[in-house]
Amino acid sequence: MALRKREQYIDSLKNMRPNVYKFGRLIEDVTTHPATRRVVESHARGIDAAHDEKLSPVFTTVSSQTGDKIHRHTSLMTSPEEMILNSKLKRKMYHLTGSCTGALCVGWNGFNVMWSITKDMDQDLGTDYHARVKKWGLHYQEKGLLVVGALTDAKGDRSLKPHQQPDLDSNLRIVERTNDGLVIRGAKLMIAGTAASEEIFVLPGMGYREEDQAFALACVIPRDTEGLTIIEARRPSDGRDLEEGFDNPVETGTSQAYLLFDDVFVPKDRVFMAGEYKYTGELITRFTATYRACIGACVAGQGDIMVGAAALLARANGLSVKTFRDKLTVMELNNETTYAMGIGSIALGQKHPSGTWLADSLTAHGNKIHVATLPYETKRRAQEIGGGIVETGCMPSYEDFTSPEYGHLVQKYLKAGSVSAETRARLARLIEGLTIGGGVPGCMHGGGSPDGARMVVYGLSPLEEYGKYARNLAGIEEEIEEPSPKK
Amino acid sequence: MALRKREQYIDSLKNMRPNVYKFGRLIEDVTTHPATRRVVESHARGIDAAHDEKLSPVFTTVSSQTGDKIHRHTSLMTSPEEMILNSKLKRKMYHLTGSCTGALCVGWNGFNVMWSITKDMDQDLGTDYHARVKKWGLHYQEKGLLVVGALTDAKGDRSLKPHQQPDLDSNLRIVERTNDGLVIRGAKLMIAGTAASEEIFVLPGMGYREEDQAFALACVIPRDTEGLTIIEARRPSDGRDLEEGFDNPVETGTSQAYLLFDDVFVPKDRVFMAGEYKYTGELITRFTATYRACIGACVAGQGDIMVGAAALLARANGLSVKTFRDKLTVMELNNETTYAMGIGSIALGQKHPSGTWLADSLTAHGNKIHVATLPYETKRRAQEIGGGIVETGCMPSYEDFTSPEYGHLVQKYLKAGSVSAETRARLARLIEGLTIGGGVPGCMHGGGSPDGARMVVYGLSPLEEYGKYARNLAGIEEEIEEPSPKK
Amino acid sequence: MALRKREQYIDSLKNMRPNVYKFGRLIEDVTTHPATRRVVESHARGIDAAHDEKLSPVFTTVSSQTGDKIHRHTSLMTSPEEMILNSKLKRKMYHLTGSCTGALCVGWNGFNVMWSITKDMDQDLGTDYHARVKKWGLHYQEKGLLVVGALTDAKGDRSLKPHQQPDLDSNLRIVERTNDGLVIRGAKLMIAGTAASEEIFVLPGMGYREEDQAFALACVIPRDTEGLTIIEARRPSDGRDLEEGFDNPVETGTSQAYLLFDDVFVPKDRVFMAGEYKYTGELITRFTATYRACIGACVAGQGDIMVGAAALLARANGLSVKTFRDKLTVMELNNETTYAMGIGSIALGQKHPSGTWLADSLTAHGNKIHVATLPYETKRRAQEIGGGIVETGCMPSYEDFTSPEYGHLVQKYLKAGSVSAETRARLARLIEGLTIGGGVPGCMHGGGSPDGARMVVYGLSPLEEYGKYARNLAGIEEEIEEPSPKK
Amino acid sequence: MALRKREQYIDSLKNMRPNVYKFGRLIEDVTTHPATRRVVESHARGIDAAHDEKLSPVFTTVSSQTGDKIHRHTSLMTSPEEMILNSKLKRKMYHLTGSCTGALCVGWNGFNVMWSITKDMDQDLGTDYHARVKKWGLHYQEKGLLVVGALTDAKGDRSLKPHQQPDLDSNLRIVERTNDGLVIRGAKLMIAGTAASEEIFVLPGMGYREEDQAFALACVIPRDTEGLTIIEARRPSDGRDLEEGFDNPVETGTSQAYLLFDDVFVPKDRVFMAGEYKYTGELITRFTATYRACIGACVAGQGDIMVGAAALLARANGLSVKTFRDKLTVMELNNETTYAMGIGSIALGQKHPSGTWLADSLTAHGNKIHVATLPYETKRRAQEIGGGIVETGCMPSYEDFTSPEYGHLVQKYLKAGSVSAETRARLARLIEGLTIGGGVPGCMHGGGSPDGARMVVYGLSPLEEYGKYARNLAGIEEEIEEPSPKK
Repeated sequence: MALRKREQYIDSLKNMRPNVYKFGRLIEDVTTHPATRRVVESHARGIDAAHDEKLSPVFTTVSSQTGDKIHRHTSLMTSPEEMILNSKLKRKMYHLTGSCTGALCVGWNGFNVMWSITKDMDQDLGTDYHARVKKWGLHYQEKGLLVVGALTDAKGDRSLKPHQQPDLDSNLRIVERTNDGLVIRGAKLMIAGTAASEEIFVLPGMGYREEDQAFALACVIPRDTEGLTIIEARRPSDGRDLEEGFDNPVETGTSQAYLLFDDVFVPKDRVFMAGEYKYTGELITRFTATYRACIGACVAGQGDIMVGAAALLARANGLSVKTFRDKLTVMELNNETTYAMGIGSIALGQKHPSGTWLADSLTAHGNKIHVATLPYETKRRAQEIGGGIVETGCMPSYEDFTSPEYGHLVQKYLKAGSVSAETRARLARLIEGLTIGGGVPGCMHGGGSPDGARMVVYGLSPLEEYGKYARNLAGIEEEIEEPSPKK
Repeated sequence: MALRKREQYIDSLKNMRPNVYKFGRLIEDVTTHPATRRVVESHARGIDAAHDEKLSPVFTTVSSQTGDKIHRHTSLMTSPEEMILNSKLKRKMYHLTGSCTGALCVGWNGFNVMWSITKDMDQDLGTDYHARVKKWGLHYQEKGLLVVGALTDAKGDRSLKPHQQPDLDSNLRIVERTNDGLVIRGAKLMIAGTAASEEIFVLPGMGYREEDQAFALACVIPRDTEGLTIIEARRPSDGRDLEEGFDNPVETGTSQAYLLFDDVFVPKDRVFMAGEYKYTGELITRFTATYRACIGACVAGQGDIMVGAAALLARANGLSVKTFRDKLTVMELNNETTYAMGIGSIALGQKHPSGTWLADSLTAHGNKIHVATLPYETKRRAQEIGGGIVETGCMPSYEDFTSPEYGHLVQKYLKAGSVSAETRARLARLIEGLTIGGGVPGCMHGGGSPDGARMVVYGLSPLEEYGKYARNLAGIEEEIEEPSPKK
Repeated sequence: MALRKREQYIDSLKNMRPNVYKFGRLIEDVTTHPATRRVVESHARGIDAAHDEKLSPVFTTVSSQTGDKIHRHTSLMTSPEEMILNSKLKRKMYHLTGSCTGALCVGWNGFNVMWSITKDMDQDLGTDYHARVKKWGLHYQEKGLLVVGALTDAKGDRSLKPHQQPDLDSNLRIVERTNDGLVIRGAKLMIAGTAASEEIFVLPGMGYREEDQAFALACVIPRDTEGLTIIEARRPSDGRDLEEGFDNPVETGTSQAYLLFDDVFVPKDRVFMAGEYKYTGELITRFTATYRACIGACVAGQGDIMVGAAALLARANGLSVKTFRDKLTVMELNNETTYAMGIGSIALGQKHPSGTWLADSLTAHGNKIHVATLPYETKRRAQEIGGGIVETGCMPSYEDFTSPEYGHLVQKYLKAGSVSAETRARLARLIEGLTIGGGVPGCMHGGGSPDGARMVVYGLSPLEEYGKYARNLAGIEEEIEEPSPKK
Repeated sequence: MALRKREQYIDSLKNMRPNVYKFGRLIEDVTTHPATRRVVESHARGIDAAHDEKLSPVFTTVSSQTGDKIHRHTSLMTSPEEMILNSKLKRKMYHLTGSCTGALCVGWNGFNVMWSITKDMDQDLGTDYHARVKKWGLHYQEKGLLVVGALTDAKGDRSLKPHQQPDLDSNLRIVERTNDGLVIRGAKLMIAGTAASEEIFVLPGMGYREEDQAFALACVIPRDTEGLTIIEARRPSDGRDLEEGFDNPVETGTSQAYLLFDDVFVPKDRVFMAGEYKYTGELITRFTATYRACIGACVAGQGDIMVGAAALLARANGLSVKTFRDKLTVMELNNETTYAMGIGSIALGQKHPSGTWLADSLTAHGNKIHVATLPYETKRRAQEIGGGIVETGCMPSYEDFTSPEYGHLVQKYLKAGSVSAETRARLARLIEGLTIGGGVPGCMHGGGSPDGARMVVYGLSPLEEYGKYARNLAGIEEEIEEPSPKK
């Protein structure tokens, strides 16, 4: 089948059962409703890109299973080069949309991770999961489906394990096993891109032990499956999405949703893990390594937009960008750091026997720490370059800008350099959205917290070995051990 | 007259001519309109505090002119102790309101600065400005008026001087001088607290040279004076102010306004500078020294709230605050740094012959640089402690929280530790507002840019003297001069 | 008695019993031996300054006890202004010497702290310690003695309390009490300025509990008292002190010593605490508050030298200092931060009933954290401005510089801008010494570790109160408590 | 020929003409003289490693020219994998030696760079340089020679171009061309590893224009060639190299030298560039890209040692390393950042038609900025963990430690946890050397300054393209140009 086009994607969304809500009301058509059309537009641009001559080397590839030309986001990544192209695609998507496109990202990662994990499970346990993943993969690639990934559970009390929670539904769980499949209940929260997706790749939110095996669950479901209710979360300034005018100047957008599973049935051939808790740790390890290697490209792309927008606003204020060369250089360095360190994690990775490439955990988690901090530095500098007008988005609203009574005065005083008042206002609103409007989710806690990443960095660094080097250098023969606990 | 109470203040606002607009519409009563009532509430709490037994030592003092008990925010600051109390009042106001209360701040500073500047002018030029300030001061103290300060001009092209601007109105200017006063035209932008104010202290936005003397202007005007149109700027998420429920959980608030001066008349006895450009540099120097010394207390107070809110949300997530001791300590250090360095600037200051205390410029501007950076670090950590729920405010809206259809599920999954879902949601919304909702203006560019502060730090540091010390230490007798320009 | 002059101080040192060792050998005369003459010179400059017309307002004052003119470093500090002058003296001493002058600093602080602590003890316990301090103070002021302070014990195993140590001498302790005084044994380590001192103010190294009362000890002893052996520690590059030429280009210097107490007798009237463990915590609190408030001035003064030296070396390389304006500004900001935040701590302090001023603990400890970090940033920038020549001190030695065989070539290639090769080399050696030669001790761990300071900042910040503010703002009535421990 | 062994290398050095000086004196045998034997030992360990079964995959490879097994440091790097192994070798060398081994690094890079540059030159100009490089390469690989690279010129006045310098020798230059070769004069400064090297790869220090073609020079010379005088620069604490005992506890070492070229003759077949100034810019670009990609591994390896040493000293102080987990994690993150970002630069590189791999410039220069800053952070934390004992190396000297008179007391008080006083002292001296003893050169300015790297990052980032993305997102059609200069 030929690569899908935007129109087919939009039609596919229109044909789905409406189960997305926001502000207390059902959204009949996610492709046109003001609260969701922007996130759909973002994803549609990713589909467009596959048909763009210049971009298609990044956005398309050949299926390692069928040899067909497919959208890259549905591919298996079998080499560092292919995984690096995941990063390149992510950075470019930000250039095209300025937003997170979760349905081009997490499902892809889930497919790759479950490819290798099911291979391991089948080998050890004699299960048939890998064939199911393979089969679903053909459907995924053929249709070029947009698939979000759902990991984060509601969690409940953070100091208790899943099976200890007063409400067991705090983590998504298997409530019934039938001959044909599973019934699951619970919630997955803050799932990016859901409104724009067609399917949902469900993965466990953490590594589990035996007593938590009901939570060791991986599967794929249609986004509009029975029993699933989706609530789009609100974001800062999301009221502007519903308004006229350019107070949100951007046609694209991000969204995050709460997925409420009210006894959802999942047929057998879409279940890739159902209780095999021993594999959840490794599943999370592989998932996060790739995710945290590649997310550096997301924040780099987002940062590129901030560099560009800040430079243009400086000009719109009447100043040369050279005035801000030092600040722009720091911003650029931040972007290249998360990008290139992620690339480094990929290059330091290894091939799994099932054929897929696995990024290096230690450096990928290290990169996550930067992803959770450097963009904040970049944002601060964008505000500093932009001036007071972007620091708090401090400008009259679009309705005041166009007021018949005094709009001409607002515009008169908003004009700064040689460009129009509207251009200056649009740039300021863009930077406002990028820096304080919460336009982009997931830098800090998305895919796990930075403190979790710090634990991995500490845990994977061979402290004792480094100590041995130090002893050798200093000419010390004595062993130096951890002090024993004192009374 | 006895210290004014909240009711009298509210009545005073109600009796003013409506000239404040937002979203294209006139606000008839700023004390009740949802777009402005919060900022009025913030200021009212400052008035309440003067009547609170525990807080009155900070919030009241005795007039150095009349000996009457007055609200501290109308006082002359004649000693370091009194200026330190300005800082203490600011930090406490954030504790009480979480917001910027510009009408308790900038007018106060303007009064003090013009007290000494007019003394200097009168002495040099034989003018009678000081008596006018004195007279207005009595009125100010007696009524306990809330007075914002307006410095920031529209500015136009940042690379041109005021008299070079294609539109001369880009900086507020004297367009006519009459026997009775002045007519002024232009705009002052991003003026914090305007809707809650009764008068406006107008000051020049920068130091001027001779060709720009039409802009060398200081005066005080009633907020509802003829010809003045006020547009409240929009802030991130300000649509929520107009909504039901707790998506903005806070009853207080901040606002910033555009002031459009369409040939406003200012009577003579309210004019404190009209063309004496030579004094504008010193005026700005004195204004910014105090402002930047004391603003460290504002961001400290704001940071205290973040410390408190982050700690509570950690608990609401089921975790002990001890888990985050390192992060909380950094936040606390940031708060104490801007606070104590500002106090240091005050202690290093000196007394002006007119009786008022002047803070030390070098260290006050140094403090401004921290004020423009450290709070960003504090905010980032508040988000890190709070978790994904606050990073992007990623939760369903109040309407979804209370939906008859699925609200019970939203609440079920929002509950984490032992507190209610609503408490957890309110805390998350509070931190969202403090960290990405742009709840607080003016940290970075308010009162001037950090780059401006850097120039002052560099300019006031005695580089050549430090070089001499180094030469002496290194035993170098040779002079070491700036290299002469090469061909 | 008139203020002492340099000659009298040098004579006093010469007349002391030789008990200072370095490199395994006894130093007969600390004022001329190359290993100690530099630290003596540094202190002598502090004495000179008291006789310098311009500097005497900082370096002298009037005794609050006798009304005599005294060197400031022997005074009681009874107001914030007087304590601020402690800071000013410290910053100036660095300008004059580039080095730590411990004998002008810690004894002074010890005298002030014991003034108030003994007052409290006497009041509670009926002891007569305060009169002893008073008496010693008169002797101290009259002679203008240079007195170091000795707090840091050898400590032994950091995970054990003093009375639990396998070797009880790990902390200096009372081994015998006689009618006339005490016999003490143990060691105090890393005591700055000892070789240049005449007396030693011994203070407990931490707060003690009952079982450690043998360590609760404060007294003053002559530096050359019987039983005391002093070993000057080595510092990076200290071999150069013994060489000819300018590889150490500086005539002044710092030193730190190990003091070995081999049953030293202390007569009664010089004992200010002997077992009253309950007062040690407060003693340390008061000591560190002042110390950490004022040490910000030390690192500021040291940083000023780095600013000056880096600027001169830029010129000596042929470049304008303007090339490095941004970096110099950061250095200057770092200097002003520790200085002004310390001043702020002083201004936020309070008067003790005994008459002395106490700095504010919370902000003083906060300042210590900056003192342990910002100077490293300043040093890095000094190296960056200076270029490769200072990064690792990478230049031929003085003997190569003056080699008859090839010295002319070394000089030919060392010459850069318009100054001589020797001037450039001296500047590079100065910066080497300031940044990697370890020229200055005590920024990080001196007077206690930064982690200790962090604990104080966390402990003194009213977390629950801040939480209450947050709750009030967010409209939360429910209490939010620490989660109870889970099974 | 089989891979050379340590003994052969030592013999080779012994057989060279003595032309290395330090402290004004000729060093007869660099392999035994205390000032140079340590740097020779470091390099010898690199030769040993090729014969170590576990390390040989990193330290050896097969020549792409001859198919022979060679030491990796003489290889052409023809793929990202091979260049990544350059990084791995560097990090491992630090583990083995704790020091910079320049003769295993820069010559290797020079060989690779000149391989591709001469290919380009020959193709454009019809020269025969490539064959010369090839021929020399065979000799290099066969012998496994240790070759330093010499780029940094004396430079003279930094504000003048080479041909404008008052002394033309300020940059190494061709003073005569003969039929057989060239005569060169000038100096190369701060060349790491020279005393341990057998040959010197001379490269231009910057990109040149036409008027500076006499400086456009690349060649290889024997280290003991006639007319070349080498002065080993002094480093902090290098006097200890000449002492007995463990005040320098390390048997390995780093050195940097001044190379004085007094009309050195270079035969034709060792000249790889002689005046072709147009290629110097590209030469520097390729050199620095590889250098700055791989140097991240050097500082990572150095940081690993600091992690290990700090952890051991914590234990030796009686504390668990867990006490310092946060600090150790930051140190580890710093190490992994420069390492993995460098790996990323390699992976983002491209193949040159001549067969060698070129790293990506933008990210490699970005990495250099981190290399110039992060290690300082790591060092600071090593000092913080180690405690006062390492902050300034504040301990008695070895001679005091072993004094018959009081050495037992020094040792008594140096003992802390369960290890011996000597072990604790050795660890403290190791960290002293790593953090303030200047043990390792070249992090900041080595291979060019961080400001130079910043210029590259700014220059290579496509600012206008980023601006276009921002405009597209914000819906702006208007062009936004740099403001034209104002009168």
